[in-house]
Amino acid sequence: MALLQDFAAIVGAENALTGDDVAPWSKDWTGKYCAQPGVVLRPASTHEVSRIMALANAERQSITPVSGHTGLVGGTYAPGGVMLSLDRMNTIHDINAQGRTAVVDAGVVLSSLHGAADAEDLIFPLTFGAKGSAMIGGVMSTNAGGSNVLRYGNTRDLVLGLEAVLADGRVVDLMSSLRKDNSGLNLRQLLIGSEGTLGVITKAVLKLHPKPRAYATAMVAVATLYDALELLNRVQDATGGSVEAFEYMPRHYIDVHMARVSGAREPFDAPHDINILVEVATTTQTDITDTLQQIMANMMEQGAILDAVVAQNEAQRGAMWERREAAAELTFWRQPIVDTDVAVPLDKVPEFLDRASARIAEADSGAEPFYIAHLGDGNIHYGVYPSRDDDALKDRIVELIEDTVQDLGGSFSAEHGVGLSKLNTMRRRKDPVALDMMRKIKTVLDPNGILNPGKLIPD
Amino acid sequence: MALLQDFAAIVGAENALTGDDVAPWSKDWTGKYCAQPGVVLRPASTHEVSRIMALANAERQSITPVSGHTGLVGGTYAPGGVMLSLDRMNTIHDINAQGRTAVVDAGVVLSSLHGAADAEDLIFPLTFGAKGSAMIGGVMSTNAGGSNVLRYGNTRDLVLGLEAVLADGRVVDLMSSLRKDNSGLNLRQLLIGSEGTLGVITKAVLKLHPKPRAYATAMVAVATLYDALELLNRVQDATGGSVEAFEYMPRHYIDVHMARVSGAREPFDAPHDINILVEVATTTQTDITDTLQQIMANMMEQGAILDAVVAQNEAQRGAMWERREAAAELTFWRQPIVDTDVAVPLDKVPEFLDRASARIAEADSGAEPFYIAHLGDGNIHYGVYPSRDDDALKDRIVELIEDTVQDLGGSFSAEHGVGLSKLNTMRRRKDPVALDMMRKIKTVLDPNGILNPGKLIPD
Repeated sequence: MALLQDFAAIVGAENALTGDDVAPWSKDWTGKYCAQPGVVLRPASTHEVSRIMALANAERQSITPVSGHTGLVGGTYAPGGVMLSLDRMNTIHDINAQGRTAVVDAGVVLSSLHGAADAEDLIFPLTFGAKGSAMIGGVMSTNAGGSNVLRYGNTRDLVLGLEAVLADGRVVDLMSSLRKDNSGLNLRQLLIGSEGTLGVITKAVLKLHPKPRAYATAMVAVATLYDALELLNRVQDATGGSVEAFEYMPRHYIDVHMARVSGAREPFDAPHDINILVEVATTTQTDITDTLQQIMANMMEQGAILDAVVAQNEAQRGAMWERREAAAELTFWRQPIVDTDVAVPLDKVPEFLDRASARIAEADSGAEPFYIAHLGDGNIHYGVYPSRDDDALKDRIVELIEDTVQDLGGSFSAEHGVGLSKLNTMRRRKDPVALDMMRKIKTVLDPNGILNPGKLIPD
Repeated sequence: MALLQDFAAIVGAENALTGDDVAPWSKDWTGKYCAQPGVVLRPASTHEVSRIMALANAERQSITPVSGHTGLVGGTYAPGGVMLSLDRMNTIHDINAQGRTAVVDAGVVLSSLHGAADAEDLIFPLTFGAKGSAMIGGVMSTNAGGSNVLRYGNTRDLVLGLEAVLADGRVVDLMSSLRKDNSGLNLRQLLIGSEGTLGVITKAVLKLHPKPRAYATAMVAVATLYDALELLNRVQDATGGSVEAFEYMPRHYIDVHMARVSGAREPFDAPHDINILVEVATTTQTDITDTLQQIMANMMEQGAILDAVVAQNEAQRGAMWERREAAAELTFWRQPIVDTDVAVPLDKVPEFLDRASARIAEADSGAEPFYIAHLGDGNIHYGVYPSRDDDALKDRIVELIEDTVQDLGGSFSAEHGVGLSKLNTMRRRKDPVALDMMRKIKTVLDPNGILNPGKLIPD
């Protein structure tokens, strides 16, 4: 097509991929949204992104931005379409140790940023299993969460400034590195989490945090989830709110992990139903492992916990984290799956799990729930393997989970975003006035509807 | 007018004020935006706000929302207009000690919320001089800052959910109490800081924090502002980032404070040029005053600070804070004034002060700068008393300050908002693409332009 040649003239022919060359962008590792795009454009600069969007807008050509391609909700699904990959824009421009900020391009891989911050004795705290592939652009577009949200917040809490290219190719410069900036409507927070529907994020100023002097990490077994919440409060109180991660792995998760990952082992001598990974970090003391060990010993004595193993070295800590970070792979390994990503108030998590399981068992007695939770955030990745691959049944299960979430004042979309997979849920569950506002904002900022159409905001 | 009767029918005649009854809403204590509104409507519920807006929209009647009326930028200026006061909607619906959240109406006074949280051993950390009058609605509409931003963030970091009435009277329900909620565009952050131009905030879910077990507060004198930043880093490092406030009061501020406030005294035995109020808080230890005293003693010995007084009791702490919190009154006591509220990267504060003073002296050799700073945020309330009341001269001074801020990568509006007073600055300094996005969003959400017209977003 002529348009392809015009695009190729902007990025160079070798960066306008078609045919077999788009294979890496055709996969979707949830297994649900595999499709070959028609073209993948790989611009090298904001200027090139701007030219692509201006041309696309003039020609009413839809564009689907993509960076690390590790999303879980089909947010980059574009069969036969034009994908705009940010992967070549991968420069870390600045790590400012004094100001504790990083200036990075959208295509920087999350773990590269981790490394660059570490070299300055700082951290970019956001982390999750796909950190070796996920890129900052996608992290920001989806307002990614992960395991350290409890302590440091979501992506939107870690972004000071950004640059984005709008649907018509204009570049909006919001590259502030200030902690305080009340100059008009907050466009930064509007673009973060907009899943590529309002603009293509090309650059960011991110907050860095001081690197903890020491981490202490433990696996803890408890009898009930209420005991787990008590454990969280006890550790928070004893450490001045220094808990970085509080992750719940149920029995079935440990079993699947052991079955599928070579070298994987039980966290404790005896198997337990409720397995908690807790991590604490401090910037002042160095003996925090002793502190954690002491808390565990006291709680064991009081019968408040069933067992505990405190990591004695980095290798043991690493093994604890590897078990947790295998979650996405272990979840999507088996198909068909109904996967959700819900949040409820912390003290409602046990009730959610009980009610959801009971309702699903009624609808499909052969269904098997498979879940794991950022328990400290009330965020549950609640999946279900239905007894048969039947779309009506799968929809029914999703609705039952949504009903349960809604009854408990929760959200049907905690951290993975909406993309395609939760579009029906958005339509059914989101406040209709809020939906109308979103549609209006989308329409006025992208009047031709070319930016990642069909995602996030239901018609 | 007939419309007034229709409004009165909604709120009751006794809550549709005119004539002398609007006097409390006619004052503006900056002295710059005094004007009598035509009507003040005082609805008692979201439903009444909704009916007011629906009627106003149908009749193309502008509405200016107001709550505590303590803003500093003319954000509620409405000569002869219709003001919608939220002051009767002042219920604290819930303080959830377990979930650490508060559900409040927009008309709740900030200090009332402080009291209610305190009763549950929690804090709502946002605080500033006007806390006894400022209300949550205004706090949210302006994304207010204050003295604890360093530790807890601005208002937008403390809001989990909100409810607002749109220009057409529809109510948008975003009353989530979740820490994680990725369900669509972030309308909450769009409404926070929108200064009543996109909707009337009627209710909120706010984050509460654990109440520190102990505070330690000191006045410290240093030789240079670079020494002050070194002091901040030293105290942060020694306390694991527990600094809640780090406020800079220059010599001229102390002088004016002593001249105008009865009983006011020098912070130290000898007068110093650079006076810092530093406050540290902890939820784990109780002896933090000792810790702070130790740090001060070490730094004195090393010659890193000139003098220090650590508060030994709540009365001494109170006196230190009273000095700081008199700032707005002391600033606006004298007229004419050019007042600004700028932010620059932390390490650029000394350079900003030097450059701005030099430039202003060139333009007006009789001008007297008067400033105070949230130094830990790089936020300077930089005022200038020009030698004569001349609009062209005042504009020139504003532009010189803006130039200096822009040169140093700062913001012309840190925490007070834009309102009327920074509208020209927005026009001149804000990224034009960002301005265009703001105008489009305003137009699509308030097509008749009835919500607080002429504020925040320049034409």
